Amino acid sequence: MLDHLKDKLYKPNYYLSMYEFRELTLRRLQLFVSQRFFSVFDYLHDPLRFMAGLETLASVDYSLCIKAGVHFTLCGGTIAKLGTEKHHLAFLPRLDTLDLPGCFGMTELGHGSNVMGIETTAEYDEAAGEFVINTPTNTASKFWIGGAAQHGKVCTVFAQLTVRGKWEGPHVFVVRIRCDAGEPIPGVRILDNGPKAGLQGVDNGQLWFDHVRVPRDALLDAFASVGRDGAYSSAIPSVSQRFGTMVGGLTTGRMLIAQGAIDACKIGVTIAVRYGCARPQFNGKVVMSYLTHQRRLLPALATTYAMHLLGLRLKALYMRKRPQDAKAVHVMSSGLKAGATWSRVEILQACREACGGQGFLAANKIGPLKSDMDVDVTFEGDNTVMMQQVAKALLDSAPRGPPPQPPRPQADAWAPEPILALLRFREDALTAEVAGAIAAAAKAAAPRGKAAAAAAGGDAFEANLDRVLALGWAHVDRIAFEGFVEELAAAPAAAGPALTALARLYGLVRLERDLGFFLAAGALTSAQAPLLRSEVNGLCAALMAGDGRPALALCAAFGIPDHCLAAPIAFDWRAIGE
Amino acid sequence: MLDHLKDKLYKPNYYLSMYEFRELTLRRLQLFVSQRFFSVFDYLHDPLRFMAGLETLASVDYSLCIKAGVHFTLCGGTIAKLGTEKHHLAFLPRLDTLDLPGCFGMTELGHGSNVMGIETTAEYDEAAGEFVINTPTNTASKFWIGGAAQHGKVCTVFAQLTVRGKWEGPHVFVVRIRCDAGEPIPGVRILDNGPKAGLQGVDNGQLWFDHVRVPRDALLDAFASVGRDGAYSSAIPSVSQRFGTMVGGLTTGRMLIAQGAIDACKIGVTIAVRYGCARPQFNGKVVMSYLTHQRRLLPALATTYAMHLLGLRLKALYMRKRPQDAKAVHVMSSGLKAGATWSRVEILQACREACGGQGFLAANKIGPLKSDMDVDVTFEGDNTVMMQQVAKALLDSAPRGPPPQPPRPQADAWAPEPILALLRFREDALTAEVAGAIAAAAKAAAPRGKAAAAAAGGDAFEANLDRVLALGWAHVDRIAFEGFVEELAAAPAAAGPALTALARLYGLVRLERDLGFFLAAGALTSAQAPLLRSEVNGLCAALMAGDGRPALALCAAFGIPDHCLAAPIAFDWRAIGE
Repeated sequence: MLDHLKDKLYKPNYYLSMYEFRELTLRRLQLFVSQRFFSVFDYLHDPLRFMAGLETLASVDYSLCIKAGVHFTLCGGTIAKLGTEKHHLAFLPRLDTLDLPGCFGMTELGHGSNVMGIETTAEYDEAAGEFVINTPTNTASKFWIGGAAQHGKVCTVFAQLTVRGKWEGPHVFVVRIRCDAGEPIPGVRILDNGPKAGLQGVDNGQLWFDHVRVPRDALLDAFASVGRDGAYSSAIPSVSQRFGTMVGGLTTGRMLIAQGAIDACKIGVTIAVRYGCARPQFNGKVVMSYLTHQRRLLPALATTYAMHLLGLRLKALYMRKRPQDAKAVHVMSSGLKAGATWSRVEILQACREACGGQGFLAANKIGPLKSDMDVDVTFEGDNTVMMQQVAKALLDSAPRGPPPQPPRPQADAWAPEPILALLRFREDALTAEVAGAIAAAAKAAAPRGKAAAAAAGGDAFEANLDRVLALGWAHVDRIAFEGFVEELAAAPAAAGPALTALARLYGLVRLERDLGFFLAAGALTSAQAPLLRSEVNGLCAALMAGDGRPALALCAAFGIPDHCLAAPIAFDWRAIGE
Repeated sequence: MLDHLKDKLYKPNYYLSMYEFRELTLRRLQLFVSQRFFSVFDYLHDPLRFMAGLETLASVDYSLCIKAGVHFTLCGGTIAKLGTEKHHLAFLPRLDTLDLPGCFGMTELGHGSNVMGIETTAEYDEAAGEFVINTPTNTASKFWIGGAAQHGKVCTVFAQLTVRGKWEGPHVFVVRIRCDAGEPIPGVRILDNGPKAGLQGVDNGQLWFDHVRVPRDALLDAFASVGRDGAYSSAIPSVSQRFGTMVGGLTTGRMLIAQGAIDACKIGVTIAVRYGCARPQFNGKVVMSYLTHQRRLLPALATTYAMHLLGLRLKALYMRKRPQDAKAVHVMSSGLKAGATWSRVEILQACREACGGQGFLAANKIGPLKSDMDVDVTFEGDNTVMMQQVAKALLDSAPRGPPPQPPRPQADAWAPEPILALLRFREDALTAEVAGAIAAAAKAAAPRGKAAAAAAGGDAFEANLDRVLALGWAHVDRIAFEGFVEELAAAPAAAGPALTALARLYGLVRLERDLGFFLAAGALTSAQAPLLRSEVNGLCAALMAGDGRPALALCAAFGIPDHCLAAPIAFDWRAIGE
């Protein structure tokens, strides 16, 4: 796949207008699809192949990756997962060839994170045996729909289903929005969302449905169906559980978003570290030899590894497909999505700044990556909401009893084990703190009844949202570090020392940036603060030994081919323009 | 000026290709210049008018602002400040009309922050009475030169001057790079830098000079001159002091960059706060009512005010034009440039994320602002270098004696005075720590001689670069907070409570993010950590009283006209696309 992506059609071109870039992206996708590297059916039968295909596109261009992702994962995956054989046969082969470009109609102008609150309606007309899809208000218009503005022909539309006058909650319908010739279907109004802050190759649009009629088969009916006579049936009785099952399929999307962010970090860090090791500043010293530069890029490198390894572990868990892991997969994918993409914001910014003016040149790739990827912190689940999901899961299973005590001091305070103990302590302490606040509020309100107690608990959760977010982060930090350390055992001997230093660096900078917490909690002492700083600086120095050999080798291990790295400053920067 | 900018030519257009946008930017600049709002002569005689003109452009489009800034400030200002009457008469009127678009040729491919190390040469040919400007290597090519790629005709070129075989250090020459008809001058090679991560309206380029001959008058000779016979003379004998005088003029540029960043924050925060107060999320509650949202946007608002007020104070100091303030102006402008632009990175990111998907839509302005402004952290002085300049000034005047003691606890720990005392303590403590490390290293090396001691001191400075950067930040935090509090006294009574809450919020979040330092230093106690958090949350709540009236009023006070705000989400978001 990487070899195929050497084709000149995929060569970066930052000169284009929005419309030109969209056309190029479509042509790229057509060429890629014609190679049949994977099929939508792989979404069900060979997810790793499916994900690898989409991930690979991100190393070339994120617009291409996302245009493919919307089509294959969001539209195709939804039909594959929520549809039944009749839908698979009718749509998936045509998706595979891009004969029928697909969109995903979930988000509305007025409803992003709160999907349960969408306003689009689907009413079953028994007489006609059809569903009537309608946009009752302007805030109900489908917004931000990838592919809708120009190329999409079919859309998986989320709508509130009413059958025989009874509301059954959000369901998904396959709705044609354009005919085969490309004209909008009567009753469908489409508006181009226009230019974005990045991802200009994706044609996002806004959609309104004016009582658009679709056949009964348009309902994706793996989990709920409507009989010809209007009899609604589902194995999942509760609206909210049914809804949870339907959006559960978004996990794959979240893994892909996280992986895209991680891959972008690999590219950015590799470019910045290579340039930093080659570019002299004052007195002939290369910039990477300065502590400030190391402090920016080496924790970035460590975090990239930590997120990459966490992503691998999540994929492995996902592939085991055990029902009892469903919740863990949800929590881990939510946490990784938020953690990896927020880290990506920081890491790419650090890389761009570390490259000076060159970091602002499009050809050097970091800038365009920053712009294109910036969507990842809010799409496929807003990061703030994702971290709340993680925290909620921890709070739900919070142990009762006294709050945890700080771990006992160890002789070698900065070895992996004590670092892990500190990260785990923070997670447990924050869990206990927030759970305690919720329980206390609920208890105080209990005399006013169960509903009052629940409401008071909810208010306490919201009053502690800053802590909730910190808890989400604490969990991600802990599982990422724990995973990193576990992977060290499997590392080849030659890579062991550098990887161990990198893992410790990751753990220590996570402690360092929340030093206030650890000191206030008595988990670290004032005397340890300067030692922690020295340890981090020492690890940076170790990774820069021999003019940066370990750091450069750790970058090389990402295995990014030259045509994906692309940036002139990652090669012979002295020859630029020559 | 703001009224003039209502002209439809200035209306945002995000659909363009790079070349189209560059042409539009040139046409915008031509129209703006034709209004004669200010003249290059104002650079010398009415700097506030000059700066106000350029600042105003930033509210409309940063490419336009920077294209104007390169022409008027960097090129025009350099000729005004470093040239003499003959240069003023020959060039400034033609700059004022844009008849002679100007560039600024300082940075080279191999030399950004280290301007003393530039390689371009200017050798005086006595026989011909000319200077020979030459690019001896590829790394000596002028890089990143705004206006050079397409529209520039004249360039202020920094080059190492040699007269009668003697090197006299960097000097500045006015060099034509294109003839009046727009063709490159023979011997000048020009390459387009191509697309960037933002600022696509500015045509940056790379320049090589192949023994280009310029007349003796091309030397800007306010501080050094070469007689017809090749006699070099300057009132400033040392090369480094001369160089310092020549680049001293960059202060205006730095103030403009800082102000641009601050103005961008005003726009971003206003859009995000207005949308946040109007957009419901779960259960009909607007997103701005959530603590996580407040924690993102209200400190951003407070920081924007703090930086704005610091900018005003810097301008006032600058306008007093007292020689004894020169160092203070240098330190303050360096610190503000780094502090305001790094804050801008954080603030615009927070605003973009707080707006969800809408934050990624170009029409909503935050995304394009982010991309365009991202250049500000490294141009006109890399922020890391700027903060080192600040720290160096503090270290140079560091008092001897024992390290400072933490301030004594106050009854009302979170009132402005104790906050200021804590911020000042941190600054003093970091100064003492780094100065102590340098002194100790120098002392240890003293037996090996003066040079060894100085080198050891320099090494200690570099080994503490992380602390040096923290010290630069500590200084900026302190002077920004101090200034903010002083301005409160002058606030109208009605604005007093909201402004005071905002100032305290600024100070407290600066303490909060370095909580580890204050705890480790014994300046705050563990018991105070949760109180600090409560106080910050309480101030957020106060600013959100009455559905956010204080916060919205503080945004309205920026006085941004609707056509500069522009973003649909800042107005009736429900009607988008209707």
